[in-house]
Amino acid sequence: MADIITIPVCLDNRSYDILIGKGLIEQAGIQISTRFNVRSVAVITDENVAKLHLAALRHALETSNMRVVPIIIPAGEKSKSFEMLETVVRQILAAKLERGDLVIAFGGGVVGDLAGFAASIARRGMPFVQIPTSLLAQVDSSVGGKTGINTFEGKNLVGAFYQPQLVLVDTKALSTLPLREFRAGYAEMAKYGLIENSDFFEFLEKNWREVFARTDKLDSAIATSCRAKAAVVARDEHESGDRALLNLGHTFGHALEAFVGYDSARLVHGEGVSIGMVMAHKFSNYMNHLGHAEVLRVEAHLHDVGLPTKISHIKGSKPDVETLLGFMAQDKKVINGKMTFILTTGIGRSFIAKDVPTSAVESFLKTEI
Amino acid sequence: MADIITIPVCLDNRSYDILIGKGLIEQAGIQISTRFNVRSVAVITDENVAKLHLAALRHALETSNMRVVPIIIPAGEKSKSFEMLETVVRQILAAKLERGDLVIAFGGGVVGDLAGFAASIARRGMPFVQIPTSLLAQVDSSVGGKTGINTFEGKNLVGAFYQPQLVLVDTKALSTLPLREFRAGYAEMAKYGLIENSDFFEFLEKNWREVFARTDKLDSAIATSCRAKAAVVARDEHESGDRALLNLGHTFGHALEAFVGYDSARLVHGEGVSIGMVMAHKFSNYMNHLGHAEVLRVEAHLHDVGLPTKISHIKGSKPDVETLLGFMAQDKKVINGKMTFILTTGIGRSFIAKDVPTSAVESFLKTEI
Repeated sequence: MADIITIPVCLDNRSYDILIGKGLIEQAGIQISTRFNVRSVAVITDENVAKLHLAALRHALETSNMRVVPIIIPAGEKSKSFEMLETVVRQILAAKLERGDLVIAFGGGVVGDLAGFAASIARRGMPFVQIPTSLLAQVDSSVGGKTGINTFEGKNLVGAFYQPQLVLVDTKALSTLPLREFRAGYAEMAKYGLIENSDFFEFLEKNWREVFARTDKLDSAIATSCRAKAAVVARDEHESGDRALLNLGHTFGHALEAFVGYDSARLVHGEGVSIGMVMAHKFSNYMNHLGHAEVLRVEAHLHDVGLPTKISHIKGSKPDVETLLGFMAQDKKVINGKMTFILTTGIGRSFIAKDVPTSAVESFLKTEI
Repeated sequence: MADIITIPVCLDNRSYDILIGKGLIEQAGIQISTRFNVRSVAVITDENVAKLHLAALRHALETSNMRVVPIIIPAGEKSKSFEMLETVVRQILAAKLERGDLVIAFGGGVVGDLAGFAASIARRGMPFVQIPTSLLAQVDSSVGGKTGINTFEGKNLVGAFYQPQLVLVDTKALSTLPLREFRAGYAEMAKYGLIENSDFFEFLEKNWREVFARTDKLDSAIATSCRAKAAVVARDEHESGDRALLNLGHTFGHALEAFVGYDSARLVHGEGVSIGMVMAHKFSNYMNHLGHAEVLRVEAHLHDVGLPTKISHIKGSKPDVETLLGFMAQDKKVINGKMTFILTTGIGRSFIAKDVPTSAVESFLKTEI
């Protein structure tokens, strides 16, 4: 058995482990059956992941005497809808899974968000395991218990805080991940460096080619990312404080995603975050918190790995200032009508800025668009 | 100010108070504004309650400087649907309520279950207050944090455990409650006596006429009921043990409700529970746990107050044994394929019986139908 890194997420009686290593899909039956007394398992996945990996997971679970109920959803952000939530939950019920049975999210961020939400409401909460297969899901969305769907009113405005009981991160699954999706996940990895770990950002600057070549440096970078996220989540599970730091780049990024109508051909989440993080650094500079050299350093690294770094990199029409501001105001990081941003005073030195005047955001955006 | 009874529900950092008294709707603005820092309030209610009481609640909240967003749903069990959940949640978001704002459930059990579920998933959880206006909601569904909706697969199979932060029980609101609904709530009150408080059952036998006349004896009976429920919920929030006792009469009752297709013209929940409780006592007798005299005593009291006590009291077609068994097997109190029942050895001496053989249930039902 190859090396497995174990990272505990400490949340009182909802604590759980993240296991990181190669071949964990094949070991899923053993890892789950040694921890849970389960008869039936709903495996929620999308068409793409099902083609590549479902047979292996199914075999692993069935070998450990679990009944497997596959629930396959269309790939893409559009599946994070009320309609698909109802479909998935009703399939879980129709397959007669009981409260002690298990729901597995097997795929990327969309699958994790939808399946986790479904697990939280089916029979008022069923045990839930994440087996993330995209880099984005492995370093970000599978850890921390945020689940949810999108509505016309905005992204992720409906959902639950619902912790998995185990996360299995099989880094071997990343060998089939397309480059564009790998890059999108990489943006979230870089984010942990930018938030509070300048050493990690430096590590990525030096080693990103090896990380992209998916050597052991990748496993190590994933572990560092998961550790960072687990620490933040343990401090502030429900985002009443510190956890907001994880939104570095996300207020701008979400607005850009909303602007393109969540059209992944034009912009995927990690790309929005990449542009958003550069904008957050530029805005920090605009607000006199950060020197220009560090803005350039962040921009240069994200550009080197092939990520978009400015609004003009988005294909097709460009948003105007008012449109972007409108989307930002609808984002959930609005408390009593004032805007909250994650700003920074240097690489690894981000902070939460409440009460940022809308007028400052507006005049900054005019310099950007 | 009239006497207010305060009952604490002890659940660590999710503890809250139930206030019981006359005129609490008119005091809602003060009671809420002294406890919460809230700007906007979504009041979820149904058409019937809106006609009778919405103006008074709205006035009370607006006088305390809250913006009121009324969300009015059709009355009746059919509103506990995915469709209505989506409608309500999206109205909360469209009205731009923020994470610190408040959702109020203002009505009976249907409103409480739907509104509580909506509050739990809107922005991944908003603060939530229950103002129950039916007797059923006041003594049962508004306390304990069970929220949910129905699907084709069954009743309350989708939802969340989500605690309110305050429950305001205005017993004056019961003056407009129709007799049939009052009786349905009374069945749940009687249940607390049958579960573990024979003194309370005796109190009801002696004083039910005054309770129905809505004297102060009613306030006292409601308080006893809420105290009983709060104690059970504090012991076992997520129904992994003891809380299942609250399901006395419910396995049979739910099956009967499912059989009539949740048609309230034929059977409302409390009526199903009344018949179900009598059946649970008969079944306890059938299983040699309980003497026949006590079955008769329970049946006599529920009959005296005007509640249905046997399947033949349901209007229209009657279920056959197989149909009822099928609905009971789909009920969520099935663990590893075995049936769990709440049985009793005497009034106030109920217990959880796991592993009840389906064959025993079947042969018992043949004596009933």
